[in-house]
This record gives sequence, C-alpha cells and structure tokens, in this order.
Amino acid sequence: MEVEGMSGIEKKAAAMAAAEEEEVGRKAAAAGDVGLKELSRKLNDFAKERDWEQYHSPRNLLLAMIAEVGELSELFMWKGEVHKGLADWDDAEKEHLGEELADVLLYLVRLSDICGVDLGDAATRKIVKNAVKYPAPSKEDA
Amino acid sequence: MEVEGMSGIEKKAAAMAAAEEEEVGRKAAAAGDVGLKELSRKLNDFAKERDWEQYHSPRNLLLAMIAEVGELSELFMWKGEVHKGLADWDDAEKEHLGEELADVLLYLVRLSDICGVDLGDAATRKIVKNAVKYPAPSKEDA
Amino acid sequence: MEVEGMSGIEKKAAAMAAAEEEEVGRKAAAAGDVGLKELSRKLNDFAKERDWEQYHSPRNLLLAMIAEVGELSELFMWKGEVHKGLADWDDAEKEHLGEELADVLLYLVRLSDICGVDLGDAATRKIVKNAVKYPAPSKEDA
Amino acid sequence: MEVEGMSGIEKKAAAMAAAEEEEVGRKAAAAGDVGLKELSRKLNDFAKERDWEQYHSPRNLLLAMIAEVGELSELFMWKGEVHKGLADWDDAEKEHLGEELADVLLYLVRLSDICGVDLGDAATRKIVKNAVKYPAPSKEDA
Repeated sequence: MEVEGMSGIEKKAAAMAAAEEEEVGRKAAAAGDVGLKELSRKLNDFAKERDWEQYHSPRNLLLAMIAEVGELSELFMWKGEVHKGLADWDDAEKEHLGEELADVLLYLVRLSDICGVDLGDAATRKIVKNAVKYPAPSKEDA
Repeated sequence: MEVEGMSGIEKKAAAMAAAEEEEVGRKAAAAGDVGLKELSRKLNDFAKERDWEQYHSPRNLLLAMIAEVGELSELFMWKGEVHKGLADWDDAEKEHLGEELADVLLYLVRLSDICGVDLGDAATRKIVKNAVKYPAPSKEDA
Repeated sequence: MEVEGMSGIEKKAAAMAAAEEEEVGRKAAAAGDVGLKELSRKLNDFAKERDWEQYHSPRNLLLAMIAEVGELSELFMWKGEVHKGLADWDDAEKEHLGEELADVLLYLVRLSDICGVDLGDAATRKIVKNAVKYPAPSKEDA
Repeated sequence: MEVEGMSGIEKKAAAMAAAEEEEVGRKAAAAGDVGLKELSRKLNDFAKERDWEQYHSPRNLLLAMIAEVGELSELFMWKGEVHKGLADWDDAEKEHLGEELADVLLYLVRLSDICGVDLGDAATRKIVKNAVKYPAPSKEDA
C-alpha cells in the first residue's frame, strides 16, 4: 500500500479498510469459501518472495496454464465416459485431480492479475450476460 | 438442504448458519471479493433452471473448458510478446479478454463441482504445497 | 483388404496397386518425405498388435492429444519470446521438442483415422480454401 | 536452394534431385498419400507470398495451434461419448471436423518447420521408440 502523502486520518482509514477486508476474508474462509482476490494476493506474494515476477509475463503464464490443462486432460484421457461424482475413481486419483484443477486455477488467477483483469468481477458479469443470452424457461414460460 | 428428521433446534441452527454464510458472501462481495463456492452455487442454479445438468458430465465440461482456453489463446496468438498490464491493448480487447478468462473459470468451477472437488480448498492446499516445494529464499538465507 | 468375390484379374490388379503404393511409400521415404496415410497405417498396426483399439475412441484420443499439446506448451512456457530456428536451445531440448511435436501428430493422425477423416486430403483442401480466402497480394496487385 | 559456388555438375545433380523429389511427391499424391514435407513446403510458400513470415514465430504458431485445438474440442464438447466412425454425425459436421483437424495439422507442420524440426522424421522415430517401450504381446509371448 502506498502511504506517502497520506494524512493521519487517511492512513487510519486505510488501515481500518485493510483490517476489515482481512476480517471478511477470514470469515469467508471460516464459512468455507475462498475468494479470487484472496488467491490473487497470495500468488502475488508468492512470486514476489521468490523473485519470480520476472517470469510472469502474460504469454508465459498462459502457456503454463495450458500445460496444466494438459495434465488435467491426462487424468481423463483413457477413461471413456466419466460420471458425475467419479464414483469409481480411487482416493489417490481424486487427490491428483484436485491438484490439477487447482494448478489450472492458480495460473488462471495469476494470468488475470498480470493482465489487469478483475477475474471475480468478470465472472460475475459473464454469468449475468449468459442469463440474458439464455433465459431460464421457467421465466419465459410462466 | 436436507431438513427431514431435524429437530426444531437443529433446523434453527442450520437456518442461522445459512444466513451467516450468505451474510459473509455479501460482505466479501462488498469488499470486492468473489468466492469460488459462491460461483459454484450460481452455476449450479443456472444449470438447474435450464435443465442443463444432463449435459454437464465431467468430460463434456472439460472439453468445453478447453474450447474456451482456445478462444483465450486466440487473443494472444499473433501478438508476439505481451507485457504486463497490456498497455497497448484497446478497451474492446481488454473487455473481450475478461470474458474469455471468465469463461475458462466458469467451466473450471463447474467441472470441479461435478467431480466433487472443493476447488477453493484444493487451491489453498496447493499453494501451501508449492511453498514447501519452493521455499522463499529470504526464509532460507536468513 | 476385402478379396471375397473378386475375380482372379481383380485380385491381381489389387495386389499390383498395393505393391505400387508401397513402392511409392518407399520412394517417398527415400526422398525424405513421410506420408500421412503411411503414419496412419503404422499406428493402426501398432494399436492392433497391442489390442489397444478398444481404448481408441474419438474423445479418448482427443484428450490424449490435448495432454501432448500441454507437454509441448511446457517446453515453451518460461522462455519469453522464442525465435525461429531456436538458436539458443541445446540439443537435448530440441530432441525433446521433436518428440512432443511427434506425439501431437501421432494422436492427431490416429484421431482422424478413427473419425473416418482423410487428414491429408482435408489438409490439402484447407490450403486451397485458405488461398481463396486470403489471396496472395502479388496476384491481386499484378 | 543455395547454388552459389556450385559447379555445373553439382547444379545439374541438384536439379535432378529436386525433379526426382517432385516426381515422388506427385506419385505419392496420385497413390492418395500426402507427405509432411510437401505440406511444409506449401505452407512456406503460402506465408512467403503473403509476407506472413514476420508473424510466424514459434510461440505465435503454438498459440494459433492451441486455438484450433479449442475449435476441434468444441465439436466434441456436448456429445457425451462419441463412437468410432461418427455414424450419427451429419455430413456438415463431418466436413467441419475435417477442417478443424486440418487446421491443427497445418499449424503443427508450420510450427515444426519454423523450429527446424523434421516432423516426419520425428514421428517415424517416435513410433520406433514407442514400439520398444511397449513391445507387442505377440512378440513377447511367442
């Protein structure tokens, strides 16, 4: 946070806002949800601490995400049709699947951040746009 | 929510927990964050309202996500190296980028849900795992 | 080859055509070219000999190809812009690249075959279609 | 072809070799096969005539190929399991499929060429390597 030039009151307000946001994050986590900005911040810290920001250009991150999509596809490739809930997958496979899904998400969140896109906002707006494009029949037919 | 067989007190507790979770969601949104479970719930409602659940098998959703990864790649394909922040992209391109990033996210969230994977939890654990695998130099060298 | 009901002359003609085709394949190989049908036949024999045809459904092969595209992307992901000819890649990297490109091709050829698509013919027609869509300036401006 | 410094005999030999190769290509095409080098040459001419070589860097071509993989996936995404031969696809869908398979191939061939990889050679060697890695049971068990 850039604090230079802030008055004492502004600093206090900023600190309170940050604390409030953190509190919301904690509660969201306690309620079992994980926020996209929260992930974005964690990944930013992670890269900064390791001096990896130099590698995180948009196309590098996109290709890294595609590599993870490939690993995700590998889990599904010889299985024929797979059913909801993956009843016949063993625990190791499900654990592995969680990791690959997470890897795709983490690069997607990081790519969005590096491109200056607010991913949560974009997703929320896309759902609204889709709802307009594909109206629910119940609302149509009522 | 399954309420059959619940005592009056249990029902009240469940209702309070649900209200609490919703309240946290509202606050998180107000603080500008969007939760993965929140998106998951929205997508589930969206599919249910349109009777689309029948199409949402794991491999269908995976291929739909890959189709969106293709559209995302299309935005970057003839650009040569792209720099952080996309200074030379116009607003229409950035808007389009936000939509494609969102599309990948929405199918990823839905795929995770249909597979029974808690994506936020998986992502949080993957960050911890990565931190162990790649320790930050400052902590190493201090 | 289906020979039942063929006359002696037809059989002889078919045998000669097959020998001719093989001869062309040998010459093409000697001249340093590899044909798509030739690869398709080799992959078909390969699968048959290992009783792998049961796994080679279109979507299995598509996901296998995507897994290979992921491995190919992995070779390019942290490199920033890469220049024609890969002057700064070492021999091991180039060898690895050749393998990943080959893997994508082999699954693409097999997928096409299983779908009943003549890939060489489709490619030849696509080049013609592209030439119509994007006329060469020299022909335009002359 | 680099001809400077060639003696008259060398030039004649080179011209004869080129004519021979072309003849083999013609025969291969007549026998219904399409060679990878033949495609590579066509794509090279195509790019040169349109002054597109400036856009054909390795990562640009890789991302263009991935965009086509996305379009290919789109054809399969809502279909559930698809069977060999695509008996229930209509002609327009099959035609479209041929185009998408061709698009992936053309970018793959061009990417290989720009990277200096002989794709046909790499594919041939990969099949041999796979045969060693996965010996055919008949040869094992005999």
